[in-house]
Parts: sequence; C-alpha cells; structure tokens
Amino acid sequence: MDFRGSHILSIDQFDRSDIEKLFSVADKLEPYASKEKITRVLEGAILGNMFFEPSTRTRISFGASFNLLGGNVREITEVGSSSLAKGESLADTAQVLSGYSDIIVMRHPENDSVQRFAEASRVPVINAGDGSNEHPSQALLDLYTIQKELSQNGKSIDGLRIALVGDLKYGRAVHSLCKILSLHDNVTMNLISPKELRIPSEIAELLASRGLNIKETENLEDGISEVDIIYVTRVQEERFKDKNDANKYRGLLSLNQSIYTANCEPNTVIMHPLPRDSRSDANELDSDLYENPNLAIFRQADNGVVIRMAIFALVLDIEEKIEETSRPVNWKVGLKD
Amino acid sequence: MDFRGSHILSIDQFDRSDIEKLFSVADKLEPYASKEKITRVLEGAILGNMFFEPSTRTRISFGASFNLLGGNVREITEVGSSSLAKGESLADTAQVLSGYSDIIVMRHPENDSVQRFAEASRVPVINAGDGSNEHPSQALLDLYTIQKELSQNGKSIDGLRIALVGDLKYGRAVHSLCKILSLHDNVTMNLISPKELRIPSEIAELLASRGLNIKETENLEDGISEVDIIYVTRVQEERFKDKNDANKYRGLLSLNQSIYTANCEPNTVIMHPLPRDSRSDANELDSDLYENPNLAIFRQADNGVVIRMAIFALVLDIEEKIEETSRPVNWKVGLKD
Amino acid sequence: MDFRGSHILSIDQFDRSDIEKLFSVADKLEPYASKEKITRVLEGAILGNMFFEPSTRTRISFGASFNLLGGNVREITEVGSSSLAKGESLADTAQVLSGYSDIIVMRHPENDSVQRFAEASRVPVINAGDGSNEHPSQALLDLYTIQKELSQNGKSIDGLRIALVGDLKYGRAVHSLCKILSLHDNVTMNLISPKELRIPSEIAELLASRGLNIKETENLEDGISEVDIIYVTRVQEERFKDKNDANKYRGLLSLNQSIYTANCEPNTVIMHPLPRDSRSDANELDSDLYENPNLAIFRQADNGVVIRMAIFALVLDIEEKIEETSRPVNWKVGLKD
Repeated sequence: MDFRGSHILSIDQFDRSDIEKLFSVADKLEPYASKEKITRVLEGAILGNMFFEPSTRTRISFGASFNLLGGNVREITEVGSSSLAKGESLADTAQVLSGYSDIIVMRHPENDSVQRFAEASRVPVINAGDGSNEHPSQALLDLYTIQKELSQNGKSIDGLRIALVGDLKYGRAVHSLCKILSLHDNVTMNLISPKELRIPSEIAELLASRGLNIKETENLEDGISEVDIIYVTRVQEERFKDKNDANKYRGLLSLNQSIYTANCEPNTVIMHPLPRDSRSDANELDSDLYENPNLAIFRQADNGVVIRMAIFALVLDIEEKIEETSRPVNWKVGLKD
Repeated sequence: MDFRGSHILSIDQFDRSDIEKLFSVADKLEPYASKEKITRVLEGAILGNMFFEPSTRTRISFGASFNLLGGNVREITEVGSSSLAKGESLADTAQVLSGYSDIIVMRHPENDSVQRFAEASRVPVINAGDGSNEHPSQALLDLYTIQKELSQNGKSIDGLRIALVGDLKYGRAVHSLCKILSLHDNVTMNLISPKELRIPSEIAELLASRGLNIKETENLEDGISEVDIIYVTRVQEERFKDKNDANKYRGLLSLNQSIYTANCEPNTVIMHPLPRDSRSDANELDSDLYENPNLAIFRQADNGVVIRMAIFALVLDIEEKIEETSRPVNWKVGLKD
Repeated sequence: MDFRGSHILSIDQFDRSDIEKLFSVADKLEPYASKEKITRVLEGAILGNMFFEPSTRTRISFGASFNLLGGNVREITEVGSSSLAKGESLADTAQVLSGYSDIIVMRHPENDSVQRFAEASRVPVINAGDGSNEHPSQALLDLYTIQKELSQNGKSIDGLRIALVGDLKYGRAVHSLCKILSLHDNVTMNLISPKELRIPSEIAELLASRGLNIKETENLEDGISEVDIIYVTRVQEERFKDKNDANKYRGLLSLNQSIYTANCEPNTVIMHPLPRDSRSDANELDSDLYENPNLAIFRQADNGVVIRMAIFALVLDIEEKIEETSRPVNWKVGLKD
C-alpha cells in the first residue's frame, strides 16, 4: 500500500510489508512518545478528531499523537453537537469537515459509516471504530504489542499461539486482530467464549481458509494453557439490543492469578484492548494480576500512541522530516523519583 | 469601521468599504487556508470558542481558522458544562472568560445575548449566532461566495439577481444576508417561502427603503428563473415552539436537477448555509444536483475559513505580520492523486 | 516541598515557604498572563485536562494557563464520554490517561477520587476539585488575591481579619482557604452562615488548635464590620441530597452597597470564588456593588491564571527556562481604546 494521502479504513488494506513499514516508523517515533525529544513537524496541520460515539482513550490517544507531532486538534465529542441531528447526510458532513482539517479521525456507531464518510471526504480519513465492524489502529497496536512482548522471550509472530477470550461476536478489536494475524504463518488460535458470543462465521471461515490452527471452547482453563498470549475482551453491552442479555455473560470468563498460575506457561502475556470491566460481577481480569509482570495491558495502551503517530506520519508523508525538526525537551518528565 | 480591538456583533457594523477591506484580507489568506504555506503569527494567542448552543461546522470552522493563524483554542461546547446553570449572570461569565482569552467567539440561543456578553467582556467578541437574530460571519462568507462565483461569470454584486428560498422567518443567515446585500446597487431579490415563513416585516421594510427590487412568492419555479444565485435554507425546527408546526413546511420547497434545468438560466449558482436537510421528507436540495458544477455549497463552507481568518486578522491587527512569519508546509496535502 | 514531579492534591502539602515560592513564580509570570510577552517553554508538552464534573471557569483557566506556557491541551468534559461508564476502575483510567499526558488536571464528584487516581498515575496530578473535599489551586489563588489586595493598603496576611460568608459546610474553597490561612499569624476569622451550613467541626477544631481568633454568627452586618476581607460563597446546591433543602438558604446572606456602606471599614475588599448566584432569590452580591472598586472578584478570577501557570512551572521544573524562550506579542491586546 502507498500510505501517502490514503484513507485507513480497514485492516484488510494491510499486507505484511505494510505492517513492517508501519512498525519500523513506530520504532523511530518511540523517543518522541517517551519525551526524550520533541518534534514540530506538523506545526500548522489540523486533525479533525470526530467522535460521534462516546470514547475517552481512543479519542485522547489520537489527539495526543497528533500533538506529539506538532499538530493542532479540533474535536467533535458527541452526536448532539452535530448537524446530523438537523438531517444532514454523512456525505455533506464529510464534505464540510474535510474543508477544516488536514486529516480526519472518525468514530461512529453505525457499521460502514466511516467508509461512506471517507468517500465524500477531501482529506484522508482514519477509521477509529465504526459500530462492531472495524477499528484498524487497535489491531495494529495489538499486533505491535504482541511483537514487542514476544521478542523479549525470543519469539516472533510467526508461530504465535494466542487465546482470544470473551465477547468474540461483537468485539471489533478481536475481528480486526484475527484478520491481521491471519497474514502470519503457523498461528494457533484458541477462541474462548460463551456459545452465543462465538466469533462470526465469516471470520471463522477466513481464518480456516488461511490455514490457522483454530480451537473453539467455552472453557477458560482449557483454552489458556499452552499459549504465548491471552487476549481478554469486555462484553460489548452497547451492541446488545437488550442489556439484560449482555448481563448473562458478564463474569463467565474471569481470569485471576490462581487460574493463571495453575494453567499457564511461564511468561504467558496478558492483553486487553481496554476498558476492562472491573465491577465485581464482571471482573474480566482480577486485580490480583496487577503485580504480574506479564500483564501487558498498560504497555499495550501506551503503544497506541506510537502506532497512531506512525499512521499520521505515513499518511501525511512526513516520516523523513521528523529528525530535522527535532528539539530537546524542556520540562521534567514523569513523577518525582 | 476600525476593526482593531472591536466587537463584531452585527452585520449592521459593516459598510461597503469595510466589506472590501475584509475581502481583500481574505484573498491574501487563501494560500494559508489551502495549505500552500503556514503562518504562526498568533502563536501564544488564545481563542475562547464559546458555544452555548449545539453547532459543529461553525464551531470547528472558527477554531480551525484560529489554528491556521497559529493560535490556541479553548472551548465550551454545551450549556450543561457552564456556570450559567449555577445562576451566574452572562455579564459575570463574560468578565471571567475574557480573562482567559485574547478574543472570544460566542454562540447562544437567546437573541441579543452575545451583545450583552460583549458589553462586559474585556476582549473582542465575535457573534457566531444569537438566537434567530444575527450571525454576521455567515453573511460575510455568503457575500464573499457570491462575489467569487459571480466574478467567474464576469458579474459583480451590484446588479445581482438572487432568490432566497425556504424559512425566511427564522433563518438568521438570511436576515443578515439581506442587510448586507442592501448596501449594494440595483439588487433584485425574489423571496420564496410559505406565507407563514415570510421574511419579518422590519427586514422587508429595510429592503424596500434601500430601493431593492423585491418580489415575494410561494412558487419555487416562478422565483428561480432569471436569477444569478439561488440561496436555499432549512426550516429552522429549533426555533418553532411546536415541532409539528415545523413539519408542515418541510419539503414544500425542494429543488432538484429537473426543476433547475426547466427553469434556471445557465450557470445559476446554488448556495445553502448548511446543514441542508437531506431526509426524504425535506430534501431541500436533491442529491441529483451533486454533479451540477454550479452547486457551490461546499465552496461556500470552505470560504468560511478565510473569512473567519480575515476577521481575526483585522480585529487582532496582525494582517501586516502574516507574510513575515510565513513558512513552508511539511506534509502531504489532500488525498492520493 | 519539592514541587518537581509532585502531585498537588491538598492544601495540606503547603507550608509558608512553599506558598512564598509559588507566589514569587506567579509574580514572574504576570507579564505572560497579561500578554506583555509570550513564552513557548512547554512546546510539545500535553496537559490532560480531565473534568468528570461540569465546570467552565476552572477547566478553561487551567487549559489557558497551559497554553500560555506553550503546551497543548487534551480534554475530557463529561462522565458520559468516559470509560468509567463501561465499568473501568479509576486506577485503570489513571494508568491509561497518564500515558497520553505530561501532567494531568482532574476534577471529579467523589471525595478522595483524585487522590486514588494519582496513586495509579505515572505523571503528576493536580487536584481541581474532588467532591466537597479539596480544590487547592482555588485556595492558593484566593490567598494570592488577599495578599495583593492587602498590600495596596499596606497590610499583610499576618494580622488579617476576614469574614467568610455563606455555605461554609459544603464549600470546598472555604475549607482549603481556612487551612492555608491557619498557617499565618494573628488571623481573625468571622464565620457567617446559617446554623445548618456551619463550617465542619474538624475544620473549626483545626483553626482553634492553631490559635486563630474565631467568631461564628448568623448575622451578616455583625460579621462584616471590622474586617479587611469579606469572602462570600454560593450555596452548593449540587452537594445537597434534596435541592429543596438548598433553597431554604438561598438569599439569607445577601450583600449590597447599602449594607456595605453602613457596616464596613473603608477599603474592605469583597471576594467570591465564583460563580456567584445572581438570580433574584439568591443575589449573594448585589449588582449595585459593580462600581465598588473594592469588589475584587474578577481580579481574583484573573489571578487563577498566574497561580495555575506557577503550579505547572514548578511541578514541570521550567521556571528557570521561561525567560530564555520569551518572545514579543504580535497581536493587538484587549479592546479598542
């Protein structure tokens, strides 16, 4: 793929060389994300950060990533503030908002909405989640995290053994991650979910057609032994027509330290796209895992910043100009020692 | 008018020389709006972008315009987040917020609210819409669009023939546009609306007193023949006491390509302040007009950026300093070829 | 206290030397707050301005202060947009958001929430109000205002005579101000409130133990004679379980010019943490005080900017680097003469 001036709408756009290119740019951007130095390469550029569905982390993560490259952020944080309520079509909104931005990040509750928006936009659009459909930057940061965590144990994504746990039906992060993993060789995937929340059949068929080694189970203990990564997800309440239906599944698959110790290989990495549901009746990942050094969930969230910076850098074609605008950091970084 | 340090509250403040001054600054700012170069002339300045009524395009447009000049934007996007809910007077809010900003843009649902706010403010205030009263930057960008579109056909605003279509009673954009057009010579104006949504009598009288050639009609086909510009507006549902009343008028005046072809002169320009209501029962401008090169509605929205930049530049008196802070653009602009 | 990399959670962290240090930095920052010059020392830094409870002035004041030092601001303005609604713990939110920011300002409706957030954060956290508990920057700007106003009359905080008026039970600004005043010598404090809204006993006991001269009364006229400062507060409706209870106290303690003239010493300064309730049934400070030069409420709000700039400068350890990044202001400051 030629990233320059392209929409980033689906994980299907990425082949292995695209992923490698993106990850190498992300590696170069780490000193900027960790505040060893700053760059102002995007000074004067404007990100339209358009969230038509509530979000905190994804919205702030994209906005912060753009700021770290020196750009400005203009934002929509709610449907209510939008002209959509006055009967405007998504195409009109796209035409107008793309006149105010150099690049747009968009989240919207309807499947395929971001694609329709992108068709009318005059600037590149990054899909930050359209309903239960796609959320490509999440899959990319997940894969980047898998690679970084595995490399510490001398492993690579080819040959990966991963357990996907929870709401595999509605979790768009899971769907995109499955697709991107299917590009790799010799991947074993344990799909652990209640029967009613099984992965959609079109994804299961894709995985089968690409030769992944798939096992479906409802049993957590069974599924998490003999894997390198456990990827846990939240029951996506907001996608259920009836919230009471969602409640039936909360708490069915809950990982804690004793289950981990009894079943997992050493250094099995625990991931979660976050937010995790920590209410006592859900408790997807117990708080007693907090001290487990293999709990990678916050490193995973941090990786979102470099991955999103890398997406911006490639789409706006500035990755070669970052170093020349580099400057030292003036302020104290982090907490008192 | 001396723009420097002035509030911009009403289109009544503008005479023809003010408009010409503003449009000439807007012309100079076009390379910055279109990202041929950037300026950081307002580095360190803060815009207080205060929207006490939902808006997307106007809020983002003002914010982006300030960013394009190098300034920062602090924002209020809802009444709920405001101290007004705790019984604070508008004058107190103005006193306090003007201590945090170099210039304030304000929208508020009550007529004359922005004027009252400005009286207590210690920095210049730009009216971005107060109820059904004024929205001067909209009228200015409309007029700028008319001038640019006409000039391509070798015409000027003096001698303009324009049809105003839709909710002429509550549409503040229309009211302001009428006033600013009345400063020009030999203007013919066809006012097309349901009887109940006729233009307010005080505006009709102003137009008559200034010698405009006015025709009122309920018939779309009749009104849009023999004009240079058709300016269509939305039924302003939010101004009706009873929404069902608003619904009676939706869809009565709907323009499509076949009506256009049958009735209009060649190159008749179609404008709309947006958002347009594209729901099937309203359909103010049919989607079959999308390919019509005379549909200027998105060029019109784009023109909002340069006009708002020009307002900021004149009020903050930096139009002479823009060139000296000019720099090249680092990133790829727009979509892949 | 060593400010560098520290959380600022409670006024209890401050001793007199800390306060003097902060105020001296605030004095140095005044030319930047008043736009005599600009600094970009925090260019590239990101403030996470996290408001989980509605606020206008505090949110905008912190954001503007960070912009004035050259930094960027990412913002949360409502609980609804947060992952807390999906069952995320405050500790998780802190872990994630601190990966996107260099410093966090947080307001939250629950007592001690900001402290719990800070425990999990990887960057310094400034408490901008946690329920009815603490709001340290408000107390600091109040004290800074008292010092500046008194110094014009040749007085200092040692020896201060102050009347605190209104809802002394729920007003967190009052609680923090009491604590900080108790560090000074020979302070006389008249506590004027309805019996049911008396200051909490633990604060009264602290004041007594530190040797302040305390008088409690329900009578406004009695309490405001023979003081240097009258500090009026709003009935904190939002802290009452039943709003009707709050209504009983609205309007009981209302100061106007004739009461002031009849009872107060010359140059008695009037302060209020704002917003003040100006509805006719509350009218804490009558509009006829508007012309009284001793009404310091807007100077007090303005002082919030330099105090918050000083907090950022000390925590991020950049106060020595401000001058070297100093630049002239390009634009016209303020209104037309």
